Amino acid sequence: MQDTMKIFDNVKPRSFPRNTCQWHIQDPASQLLTWNKPPKSVLVIKKVRDASLLQPFKELCVFLTEQKNMIVYVEKKVLEDPAIVNDENFGPVKKKFCTFREDFDDISNQIDFIICLGGDGTLLYASSLFQDSVPPVMAFHLGSLGFLTPFSFDNFQTQVTQVIEGNAALVLRSRLKVKVHKEHKEKKTIVQNGVEENGLMVNQQEKEHGKLTKYQVLNEVVVDRGPSSYLSNVDVFLDGHLITTVQGDGVIVSTPTGSTAYAAAAGASMIHPNVPAIMITPICPHSLSFRPIVVPAGVELKIMLSPDARNTAWVSFDGRKRQEVCHGDSISITTSCYPVPSICFRDPVNDWFDSLAECLHWNVRKKQNHFTGDEEEEY
Amino acid sequence: MQDTMKIFDNVKPRSFPRNTCQWHIQDPASQLLTWNKPPKSVLVIKKVRDASLLQPFKELCVFLTEQKNMIVYVEKKVLEDPAIVNDENFGPVKKKFCTFREDFDDISNQIDFIICLGGDGTLLYASSLFQDSVPPVMAFHLGSLGFLTPFSFDNFQTQVTQVIEGNAALVLRSRLKVKVHKEHKEKKTIVQNGVEENGLMVNQQEKEHGKLTKYQVLNEVVVDRGPSSYLSNVDVFLDGHLITTVQGDGVIVSTPTGSTAYAAAAGASMIHPNVPAIMITPICPHSLSFRPIVVPAGVELKIMLSPDARNTAWVSFDGRKRQEVCHGDSISITTSCYPVPSICFRDPVNDWFDSLAECLHWNVRKKQNHFTGDEEEEY
Amino acid sequence: MQDTMKIFDNVKPRSFPRNTCQWHIQDPASQLLTWNKPPKSVLVIKKVRDASLLQPFKELCVFLTEQKNMIVYVEKKVLEDPAIVNDENFGPVKKKFCTFREDFDDISNQIDFIICLGGDGTLLYASSLFQDSVPPVMAFHLGSLGFLTPFSFDNFQTQVTQVIEGNAALVLRSRLKVKVHKEHKEKKTIVQNGVEENGLMVNQQEKEHGKLTKYQVLNEVVVDRGPSSYLSNVDVFLDGHLITTVQGDGVIVSTPTGSTAYAAAAGASMIHPNVPAIMITPICPHSLSFRPIVVPAGVELKIMLSPDARNTAWVSFDGRKRQEVCHGDSISITTSCYPVPSICFRDPVNDWFDSLAECLHWNVRKKQNHFTGDEEEEY
Amino acid sequence: MQDTMKIFDNVKPRSFPRNTCQWHIQDPASQLLTWNKPPKSVLVIKKVRDASLLQPFKELCVFLTEQKNMIVYVEKKVLEDPAIVNDENFGPVKKKFCTFREDFDDISNQIDFIICLGGDGTLLYASSLFQDSVPPVMAFHLGSLGFLTPFSFDNFQTQVTQVIEGNAALVLRSRLKVKVHKEHKEKKTIVQNGVEENGLMVNQQEKEHGKLTKYQVLNEVVVDRGPSSYLSNVDVFLDGHLITTVQGDGVIVSTPTGSTAYAAAAGASMIHPNVPAIMITPICPHSLSFRPIVVPAGVELKIMLSPDARNTAWVSFDGRKRQEVCHGDSISITTSCYPVPSICFRDPVNDWFDSLAECLHWNVRKKQNHFTGDEEEEY
Repeated sequence: MQDTMKIFDNVKPRSFPRNTCQWHIQDPASQLLTWNKPPKSVLVIKKVRDASLLQPFKELCVFLTEQKNMIVYVEKKVLEDPAIVNDENFGPVKKKFCTFREDFDDISNQIDFIICLGGDGTLLYASSLFQDSVPPVMAFHLGSLGFLTPFSFDNFQTQVTQVIEGNAALVLRSRLKVKVHKEHKEKKTIVQNGVEENGLMVNQQEKEHGKLTKYQVLNEVVVDRGPSSYLSNVDVFLDGHLITTVQGDGVIVSTPTGSTAYAAAAGASMIHPNVPAIMITPICPHSLSFRPIVVPAGVELKIMLSPDARNTAWVSFDGRKRQEVCHGDSISITTSCYPVPSICFRDPVNDWFDSLAECLHWNVRKKQNHFTGDEEEEY
Repeated sequence: MQDTMKIFDNVKPRSFPRNTCQWHIQDPASQLLTWNKPPKSVLVIKKVRDASLLQPFKELCVFLTEQKNMIVYVEKKVLEDPAIVNDENFGPVKKKFCTFREDFDDISNQIDFIICLGGDGTLLYASSLFQDSVPPVMAFHLGSLGFLTPFSFDNFQTQVTQVIEGNAALVLRSRLKVKVHKEHKEKKTIVQNGVEENGLMVNQQEKEHGKLTKYQVLNEVVVDRGPSSYLSNVDVFLDGHLITTVQGDGVIVSTPTGSTAYAAAAGASMIHPNVPAIMITPICPHSLSFRPIVVPAGVELKIMLSPDARNTAWVSFDGRKRQEVCHGDSISITTSCYPVPSICFRDPVNDWFDSLAECLHWNVRKKQNHFTGDEEEEY
Repeated sequence: MQDTMKIFDNVKPRSFPRNTCQWHIQDPASQLLTWNKPPKSVLVIKKVRDASLLQPFKELCVFLTEQKNMIVYVEKKVLEDPAIVNDENFGPVKKKFCTFREDFDDISNQIDFIICLGGDGTLLYASSLFQDSVPPVMAFHLGSLGFLTPFSFDNFQTQVTQVIEGNAALVLRSRLKVKVHKEHKEKKTIVQNGVEENGLMVNQQEKEHGKLTKYQVLNEVVVDRGPSSYLSNVDVFLDGHLITTVQGDGVIVSTPTGSTAYAAAAGASMIHPNVPAIMITPICPHSLSFRPIVVPAGVELKIMLSPDARNTAWVSFDGRKRQEVCHGDSISITTSCYPVPSICFRDPVNDWFDSLAECLHWNVRKKQNHFTGDEEEEY
Repeated sequence: MQDTMKIFDNVKPRSFPRNTCQWHIQDPASQLLTWNKPPKSVLVIKKVRDASLLQPFKELCVFLTEQKNMIVYVEKKVLEDPAIVNDENFGPVKKKFCTFREDFDDISNQIDFIICLGGDGTLLYASSLFQDSVPPVMAFHLGSLGFLTPFSFDNFQTQVTQVIEGNAALVLRSRLKVKVHKEHKEKKTIVQNGVEENGLMVNQQEKEHGKLTKYQVLNEVVVDRGPSSYLSNVDVFLDGHLITTVQGDGVIVSTPTGSTAYAAAAGASMIHPNVPAIMITPICPHSLSFRPIVVPAGVELKIMLSPDARNTAWVSFDGRKRQEVCHGDSISITTSCYPVPSICFRDPVNDWFDSLAECLHWNVRKKQNHFTGDEEEEY
């Protein structure tokens, strides 16, 4: 039986109805994976152009199809790697694969389970393929431990079997739902010299209405000055209020998962993925007092160029889809309702502290007893 | 109608039962105060030894008793101020007061409402009086805006009336429940030379069992090296696992409310009070890579001296009750089930950003377009 | 009479001869301007495209030519501003000007004195015009105080007179001498179809040898990832030894003058211009422990792409002349023998602390007695 | 032949005479030790209470006395270690020692050379023994590399011989000359009841004039709040001008040598020991914008309690001689004319970067190509 938060008896906080996704705080040590029915289809994502991954990739696929009778989905371009094309032994297995092409084939409803081989980038890529709910992801690092790739490949058979049987802890990594609204732009191209032949005066007029694009982001949205050597100058709004103007190299809006990526490089504190929050971190701000801040997961952020900005800015999403931000464009950011269920090697707490130590050398140090050497009589 | 977090259909995160207090994420713009019945008794807390507060204090008390027919509780020592004792006009009002003495009289079940006059310290003090649930607190700053004291006293009558009528936003400030467990110490003082005269063999043996003390903390628990010039050397555990050892001046475990206090001075990012989290911030750590971290509200932290620590450490709670920490002693910290319902001047979002600007000059800056002056042709 | 550094009697540090410029430590309170003969020719630099500067510019020029009988040098493009062209009153004065064009006319030996009107960028621009020794510069800010523009324009006549009469303190702002060595690239363009007319087989072969370009930099050299979203990966050498590899957004090598510009935004400590040192500051480094460092003015730094860098980098000099850095290119940096003699409003110490406060709000704060409010009994 | 700084021909900076010690910039790669005559007397400093050092200590002393015919000075308390007292083999050697007691015997004019065995604290201790010029110091770390102890003990004979023969690079570590002026306090203790018996009216009147104490500091002067939980509140003056007020845990005034000690923990940039500068670093300042600063070696700093400080502060010198600072007391700090000539293992540049890596893990990191994993097509 659980306690719940106790507020003074005579008082009851009343909540407005709101169109945001309601998050519950996850108890970091207690999320377990439960399959309603055994997973049948598995998407295998492999870092491309990395020869060292071919052998593990083949071993994994053979294991999944032959031992586990699963249907393996693989991106078409992965199989076009000559090393795979020319591998005779791999031929029979390959035939059983379902293939797809990014941006053409939507497989998001056909996958029960995802396995990644490679660096943290494979998980960011997996995230980008699923704009709605995401199947559980198991990620192998194949080199040194990553924040998003906790499993080592050594005894992958045992580990995959454990996960398929539901013996695994989960961390639900929140994502950001980002809407980029490009300002309505009326482009008039009037052909001055009408075509006489058919007596028609051509008056071509292209009207481009405001365009809305959506992204699901696992690490961060970055707005920066791009190739310009001017400071970027962007306004940040929270629930409709202007909270600050960023003057500097740019600003990072990140999930807790992203707090250990670019935001950490820009000086942010590191946030455990189970904290329901959004982090706002300036990049080289012109102001000495512009410390990063952490706001609740439920808010809506909006970023626009400042009215007096002399230059445009650039935005990217998990390091991808880089594009220009012009006057009038807006980027709205909320916590997504579709987190990435990321399978833990041990559990969310130990995995996180292991990767802090391994990837960022967090508080790795030489032992010492005194800043300035030693104490008076004990020099 | 609210959306809830959507996880992949076939998967259900299953939670362990756990004895922790479950927190829900507060939507920062939506908490409103609702009284089940009108508040009758009000505790007024006044910063002592500050003559400028006497007049406002009297005006407020007269207003509450005469206009609002409320029962006013005041600490005894406040009324012992000669300026109040000798004030004839105040005499009749004073008689209606209920008085109490800290550490002697428990008034925690008799108060419906708290009003603070003074600095942020008054609210920390109010918090310390209520070890269980805390009545709503309305805090006036009487000088410059504070993080915990959003109201100005100018038109206090209107503002207090608004609050009593339930027209007010609330922020539920989480507290930390801290248990200090002093090691069981067996002190044997054996008088070797028994006294023969009375035939008594004196064998004095004092056995002091482990002692447990509890605190509710609104800002932070600080463990530091105290007057020692040695580095402190303490181990930090999370849910039973050693996560790191702090070598330096000490470590701060703070609530989001405390993230703008001492933790900010020690370099932490600032966290909105509605984020359910606990912040761990080293104080002048010996390691360059020891960045502050933010963990979920649901965890249990424990701090102990490192086994090889050469000196003791010191601990304090919201700057109070400073005491030594010896080998074997432990400080366990969890999120309390009893937050402080703090009444907002506007709302949790605007109040927080106003105080960031006012108290910490957050991102206050001079406008500029280029770090190094201006661009090529426009010098 | 001055003391000099005393080393143990029996010991004498012996110095190698070295081809570096030897700097002496300037006593920040004691540098005074001394003219050997009164300055006759003055270069006036005006921020372009800023209408508010036209009136001060004209007043200053009239004053210098008519009251002080000085020869005024102005850049040609400044006088092409329509507002000046069409100004009848300004006509007669204008005729006395000497004009020049950047990159065409070398006026560096004809100028005794420089006056800047505008932002810090005017002084950076003035610096770029003088690749060898620089005449004393007096800079007016015409808006809010800048680090490089200490004078306000209010009573400019008195102030300019004082300076011309030698009543002024100087700060010698060190510059960096930067050599960019672009790798020797052999471009072969063989015209396959020989021209038959003259019976000549054209075999055009362009051989571009390594190219060396030099810059004098007052604030900083920045090497960054430019428009790439990859981390930059550059090696930093000191006196020929590889001291570190920068992985992140880039690296800043700055003078003390530049330590309050971009380097401050990237987290560096601020260095008084009189300290003979060079600062190396990483920009958003991937490593938590990559703290900025300060090395002696006498060293030679070199920056190159790391051999395993997957992308090129970009370099700029005081925010200008941005260019790509490819594998094999090198950027060598030493302290220049040609500082910028910058005229102080008061003196180097007071001017610097005034600009720290004004431009960066350094340690501007709200007074408080206790991090967590107030002490026990005094809440 | 060396270049010297070139200033514009017509201008000559004129210097005031000043009573400060004039420092020249050391070329970090070029300082070599030169003995005028071979060193005869050597002071050996050993970390006390560390059993592992006894054997190396004995080996070293035997080597110095028997192989090198040097006179060895050792502090008396070192020889009182029972392990040494009872060591028969060591007896004959011990007899040749000259011994002294700290604070009793002044040996500062009798020593040609210092050898330290132990941690960085041994060199701080050596520094404290020499208030004027300091003989060259050779320091062995006997464990892991320290900032001040570059030599490993393995082949100590060869290394000591090299140094004695003058084959060694030197770094002249600047020290701070600190004067603590305790306010003149008139304590009147009047014995009221004069003693009549002998007809003497006792009127004891103790008049304590202002007291001045001096220290030579190698790492830093720290002024902090001591055991108080109030913020310290101290004013910092530079050449007589109030430059800022520190509100926080305290302030560190350090040499470049000290910039890698406590100042680094408090967030300072790290300064090479050859830079002639003084660093001012706040400890957990209440203000977000209070960045550390670096000022020229030639200035005079003064620290006093702010007039409105509610509590006293505490000061210590290289972690020693901790004492209270009361209203009216002042601490004045200048660069000392007596640096510590510290013998390098390789040279000042390599030694420093080696110790940055070893002691502070400076920029030790895991290689990565992209903050958020990898680029679009290469996930």
